[in-house]
Amino acid sequence: MAVDWYTEKHTPHAGITLEISRRLFDQKSPFQHIEVVETVEYGNMLLLDGCVMITDRDEFVYHEMITHPALVAHPNPQRVLVIGGGDGGTVREVIRHAAVRQVTLVEIDGMVIDVCRKYFPAVACGLDDPRVDVQVADGFAHLDAHQGAYDVILVDSTDPVGPAEVLFTVDFFRKVKAGLAPGGVAVFQSENPLYWGDLIAKMHRDLAPLFAHVGLYLASIPTYPGGLWSFSICSDVVDARKSPAPAPLPFQDQLKYFTPAVFKGAFALPQFVKKLVQP
Amino acid sequence: MAVDWYTEKHTPHAGITLEISRRLFDQKSPFQHIEVVETVEYGNMLLLDGCVMITDRDEFVYHEMITHPALVAHPNPQRVLVIGGGDGGTVREVIRHAAVRQVTLVEIDGMVIDVCRKYFPAVACGLDDPRVDVQVADGFAHLDAHQGAYDVILVDSTDPVGPAEVLFTVDFFRKVKAGLAPGGVAVFQSENPLYWGDLIAKMHRDLAPLFAHVGLYLASIPTYPGGLWSFSICSDVVDARKSPAPAPLPFQDQLKYFTPAVFKGAFALPQFVKKLVQP
Repeated sequence: MAVDWYTEKHTPHAGITLEISRRLFDQKSPFQHIEVVETVEYGNMLLLDGCVMITDRDEFVYHEMITHPALVAHPNPQRVLVIGGGDGGTVREVIRHAAVRQVTLVEIDGMVIDVCRKYFPAVACGLDDPRVDVQVADGFAHLDAHQGAYDVILVDSTDPVGPAEVLFTVDFFRKVKAGLAPGGVAVFQSENPLYWGDLIAKMHRDLAPLFAHVGLYLASIPTYPGGLWSFSICSDVVDARKSPAPAPLPFQDQLKYFTPAVFKGAFALPQFVKKLVQP
Repeated sequence: MAVDWYTEKHTPHAGITLEISRRLFDQKSPFQHIEVVETVEYGNMLLLDGCVMITDRDEFVYHEMITHPALVAHPNPQRVLVIGGGDGGTVREVIRHAAVRQVTLVEIDGMVIDVCRKYFPAVACGLDDPRVDVQVADGFAHLDAHQGAYDVILVDSTDPVGPAEVLFTVDFFRKVKAGLAPGGVAVFQSENPLYWGDLIAKMHRDLAPLFAHVGLYLASIPTYPGGLWSFSICSDVVDARKSPAPAPLPFQDQLKYFTPAVFKGAFALPQFVKKLVQP
């Protein structure tokens, strides 16, 4: 039997390769090329324009770590906006928090949502919670129409090429800030520090004038470039880097990555990463 | 021009793939298959039995992180033993510490040392320091002959298959313990927690009865399986997990990964890793 492998090049010269048992979905939306394959090692895997977005086996890291630091840092996160994140994994984590009354998901590509509901039921499950409002729409326009509306905004974007490129501009950062209620906290996924060091440095130069506190934290994601991912957490009131270790979460036993100690430890940046964001 | 790639399968179904610009060395020693290739993304890369050992670009993570936590946790590390580590990177980090008077490197495969001196001069450089005694010998026999001799023992082994398999046995752990002077600290590299979870759990079950304190800590290494690596630090006196953050090291500006904050943060285990080592 012929063996099928999928290789994602993280740079032109380095990548990851995974054995595929079945190809489940392959279609072009108006925004991007969407594929779902079943891998032997990581279960189902979503690819957007050839880049690994989520796999069944390791999606928990990204989704827990884009969500819980902000939701723990904010003293009372009632209204949450997720931009991107059409797979539903981030929303699934947000609604674990009892304080949350309303979650709005604004995903530009409805096909991503439909595909994930079908092939990643354990990820998309949160989308059916009564507190969740799923909108297929443009994040920019949504922010313009909802200034000061959110306690937490999570920017769960794809890489800064293609449809998500605009989500890494100063113009967008400003709109996110304007979308926050007083005391609000925003998180941007901000790529791998080895391969995207220049991007992280630029993001932090751009974010620094906009927010009183901008912190970078890390999580280890096996199927992502370099196995290491960064997130940028921003607020005018809360400095998440200096928050004390939170109390254990009531749903801790449902998590596989985040713990109160991980919340603190994730801000301990390796020297080469620290240098990227030092003023 | 034909493009040449090297793929290391981390499991039968998943791996890393790197473009190769030149193949520099390919020979079998009495112990293992030794290759050196030049990669486009990571510089020179050493392979033992087809597994990535070091690359120019990311070797700093492994070498700093197997070394500095123990050297910082021990109050006065004068005599250090490195078992394995023929590339010299661990020794390079050890000798940065002014307290160190004597480092013994015991590597079973002399060809590894010779190859690394030639193709990884910036890694092997530490081997020529006057405090360093390089011995091509068996670690077991050395430990039998040097009981109670070392303040710190660093087990810088390959994976638990082939020549290094014996370095993951209870018998070996006992000999390492016997090799420590009172108050001594030992570190074992202990593989990736996603792919080698059972091994880590077994190691910790085996180490727990031997040492009063056994801690697991993590570091992010892009070219290693899963991008995440674990180390087990053991002592009868020092509990590195509870050590306060150390003072800044006098050679901090020469490091690229380790910092006092990283020392603390590396012990913040993700929930799925914590479960592997919970008693």
